Amino acid sequence: MNFEQFKKDGRFLPPVEKKYLELPKPTAKDNLPDVARLISYLKRKYNEQRLVVGLPVIRKSPDIFRQDNFHITVTLARPVQLGRKTQIINIQPGDLTGKNYAIALDIGTTTIYGQLVNVNTGAIMARYGDFNRQISYGEDVIARLVYAEKPEGLKKLHDVVIEIVNHIIKEMVHEAEIDPEQISVIILAGNTAMTQLLLKVNPKYIRRSPYVPASALYPPIKAVDLDITLGEHVSTLIFPDISSYVGGDIVAGVIASGMYNAEELTLYIDIGTNAEVVIGNKDWLVCAACSAGPAFEGGGITFGMRAIKGAIEDFSIDPLTLEPMNITVGNVRPRGICGSGLINIVAALFETGVIDNIGRFNRDLDTNRIRRQEQDGIYEYVLAWADETRLDKDIVLTEPDIDNLIRAKGALYSGCKTLLEEVGIGFRDIDRIVLAGGFGSYIDLEKAMTIGLLPEIDPDKFTYIGNGSLIGATICCLANHIRKDVVEITRRMTNFELSETASYMNNYMASLFLPHTDMSKFPRIKQRLEARKLMKGKNFEGRVKSS
Amino acid sequence: MNFEQFKKDGRFLPPVEKKYLELPKPTAKDNLPDVARLISYLKRKYNEQRLVVGLPVIRKSPDIFRQDNFHITVTLARPVQLGRKTQIINIQPGDLTGKNYAIALDIGTTTIYGQLVNVNTGAIMARYGDFNRQISYGEDVIARLVYAEKPEGLKKLHDVVIEIVNHIIKEMVHEAEIDPEQISVIILAGNTAMTQLLLKVNPKYIRRSPYVPASALYPPIKAVDLDITLGEHVSTLIFPDISSYVGGDIVAGVIASGMYNAEELTLYIDIGTNAEVVIGNKDWLVCAACSAGPAFEGGGITFGMRAIKGAIEDFSIDPLTLEPMNITVGNVRPRGICGSGLINIVAALFETGVIDNIGRFNRDLDTNRIRRQEQDGIYEYVLAWADETRLDKDIVLTEPDIDNLIRAKGALYSGCKTLLEEVGIGFRDIDRIVLAGGFGSYIDLEKAMTIGLLPEIDPDKFTYIGNGSLIGATICCLANHIRKDVVEITRRMTNFELSETASYMNNYMASLFLPHTDMSKFPRIKQRLEARKLMKGKNFEGRVKSS
Repeated sequence: MNFEQFKKDGRFLPPVEKKYLELPKPTAKDNLPDVARLISYLKRKYNEQRLVVGLPVIRKSPDIFRQDNFHITVTLARPVQLGRKTQIINIQPGDLTGKNYAIALDIGTTTIYGQLVNVNTGAIMARYGDFNRQISYGEDVIARLVYAEKPEGLKKLHDVVIEIVNHIIKEMVHEAEIDPEQISVIILAGNTAMTQLLLKVNPKYIRRSPYVPASALYPPIKAVDLDITLGEHVSTLIFPDISSYVGGDIVAGVIASGMYNAEELTLYIDIGTNAEVVIGNKDWLVCAACSAGPAFEGGGITFGMRAIKGAIEDFSIDPLTLEPMNITVGNVRPRGICGSGLINIVAALFETGVIDNIGRFNRDLDTNRIRRQEQDGIYEYVLAWADETRLDKDIVLTEPDIDNLIRAKGALYSGCKTLLEEVGIGFRDIDRIVLAGGFGSYIDLEKAMTIGLLPEIDPDKFTYIGNGSLIGATICCLANHIRKDVVEITRRMTNFELSETASYMNNYMASLFLPHTDMSKFPRIKQRLEARKLMKGKNFEGRVKSS
Repeated sequence: MNFEQFKKDGRFLPPVEKKYLELPKPTAKDNLPDVARLISYLKRKYNEQRLVVGLPVIRKSPDIFRQDNFHITVTLARPVQLGRKTQIINIQPGDLTGKNYAIALDIGTTTIYGQLVNVNTGAIMARYGDFNRQISYGEDVIARLVYAEKPEGLKKLHDVVIEIVNHIIKEMVHEAEIDPEQISVIILAGNTAMTQLLLKVNPKYIRRSPYVPASALYPPIKAVDLDITLGEHVSTLIFPDISSYVGGDIVAGVIASGMYNAEELTLYIDIGTNAEVVIGNKDWLVCAACSAGPAFEGGGITFGMRAIKGAIEDFSIDPLTLEPMNITVGNVRPRGICGSGLINIVAALFETGVIDNIGRFNRDLDTNRIRRQEQDGIYEYVLAWADETRLDKDIVLTEPDIDNLIRAKGALYSGCKTLLEEVGIGFRDIDRIVLAGGFGSYIDLEKAMTIGLLPEIDPDKFTYIGNGSLIGATICCLANHIRKDVVEITRRMTNFELSETASYMNNYMASLFLPHTDMSKFPRIKQRLEARKLMKGKNFEGRVKSS
């Protein structure tokens, strides 16, 4: 976060500002109404123009003004555009200018993250993340959209996400030891479906062709109107959605990446429960959602799990014995495979020839690790025997698991490729790749290229930014001009529905190989595979069964 | 109401407008979000700029758009200032442009009046009035302000007035046989105290020196936020208050009178439960509230009552026998005296010499109509003997009653006079006097001048406009530019607190006579009284007791 830079540039203008005022007390000669007194003083003393006040502040003013002898702290909500209306959203007795906080929220399909920000200093006072317990109504976005159509379904999904938001805010308030009354604003980013569910906006048409969300931009919405348990003065500023599957979280990520302001051409990839890509620079932006599915988060994988304790996250294999070495989160006995582990396993199996380029196990190898399930004839590789695990059974990777990963990486890669083709460029034109999403931070670039998830590009061009959505929301807590950029981004960004883009299906089919049908696109892995062929028979790969 | 003129002038621009739109249906190539589709269409087809949408419309859009195949009626709330934001407040399926209604409300201390207006044609579809049942918590404004400070007092006063407003709306909807869903806006005017009570804004400081109301201007407030049972889209537009005792009802009256646009100098007098005066023209406006008390509505008078059936409203006296002739509302036997009756009685008693210029009965007259109460020695005149009344006792007018009227008329007259003096002019400079208020319509000008309630001015200069507040509110339902004038009026209008104006007390004391200490100000009555003196002894006045 280039927050210090904002301060240096004089661009540090949070969406909410507190001012301490010692108002002149009314007299017989000067008995202006309370609110008129406040407005007139702000005009005179601070040249504040176009001030507006809502009923809650009017209701408070007679008592609050007189509580500390007409010494008050006023909270101003700044307009996105300079010169537009500034809203007086709160008045408090005495000087409370030192206490002004904002909440940044990332509403993910799987996880919801919050940051509590000191608006005066830019300091992050607390962080908290929790699972999106909507999961009990549907594992993925589509399942939840289906659930939302049931009677009371939308309300339940809304209620549960708000409950978590309230919980996260409470935890952060507790951690930072602040008075929640001093929170002035919430800035929230989520994908389109999560945003509509949180706002209780019927998401029925998101998942139906031609995939129409309810709105792109949202007005500021009072937190209390969303049942968020904060003061009546708190507004929720919501990142706009681009399309049904490219939402405010991606817009926030684009903000976080700074790509929309840069000369250089950037490819932004957010890998979460879904995968979205944005390409562009200061002149243009295009985006698309890839139906990558949940494999990168361990979803749809027999022993898939999230990257928590006991998840295999790294892996290597003895090319001769084909014996594995699993590295788990927390260095404990394994319980399953997380997304990054899956990529590393498949990459290693592929490089050592244990699987071929369509993800099929080499049935000829002389190892008891590769076996055929009695019941359904599915081939699998035993990553860990039952007695080495924290389960009471062998942890395996099956051919359907590999197939799931291939389809996921194929969707992402071909999505990027299609989008590039649509704007008439190629991977080699990309100056910078930004990887976002919880998963992005753990990815082993080389392995991701080996399986063809990422294009073979100079690793120096890659940047990990982590949770781009949360970073973008946090920046908006501090620099109001960024909100103008947000609106500008939604205007400039062109969305491609890949399913409606003619070349996509060809690109997708060509990507359903390890790393790809067209090996010329992956020269480094091609070279390694050719080197391996030369080594063949020289004990650099698994022994073949004697038949 | 110069409504036809507005239409002719092309100034007919209601604050709410409905448009019927046949939106293009979304396709794979055009899958803009619903709300973005609406906004883009309005821009393209009607050059509508700066449109904003709130969460309720966003929530409705997915379903409403598809209910009649993307044929919708959109309701636009226009900004006061051209070029500012237009709000899309409602969407409905199909073509409902023919049905667009507004409610105008006058929230009086005693009575609440409503008019249901067809916004397309300007027609008044229904009218309804009801007592302000806050009266059970306090007869006059001050009593209610005192009650508002009790625990739950403000809430109770708010609740009861809203209950009546809801009742009035229901009655009008019933009478006009319209669908209340098609009501788009409420425009409301009331005095400062009534406005704050209705808005549930603590009115504690209205009645305490230096008499500070909470606010001058109010933002549009959602009807549902005030517990008014109308659609979520309905905003309440509230006339601004000038000071603690010159409220939105007076601003609305100034609008209704047109005085703020006129070359000629106008004196606007609103006599209701309180009396307020405004003087000015298109260049300047000054105003003041007169503590006239409720005598003009029969308050504080032994047999005072409202101008309903059985109230003595006119009166004459036989100068010789001193026998009265009472004329009552409905021509039934009398039950009491209403405000206009009171003025006419006192005027007649004064002109015939039954009372002197300080309102004392001539104890020497030979009539059993004038008598002294046994108990407390108070003198009184019997207007009707018990057997002529609908009561079981004599209806009388006492010296304290007369004193109350003299103080009331003195307050009003001296208020006008002080205000004129403050701006350096006199009654003779006034081109036009506008009388407003229910009471104003029934007043007998000549009698009002006889007692010194009104100055002796050419009767042709007087206009009665009735309920100026309700007329002003109604005009605003039809001509949005008037709302700009409203804001302009509050800026231009200078309020004088008479109690803080040095000359007021002298003027007031000089007015506590019939008609005034300075008879040169009332040449016509002076002349009549002198003529009467010449007639003395010629049987043109009551016989003196033989002592």
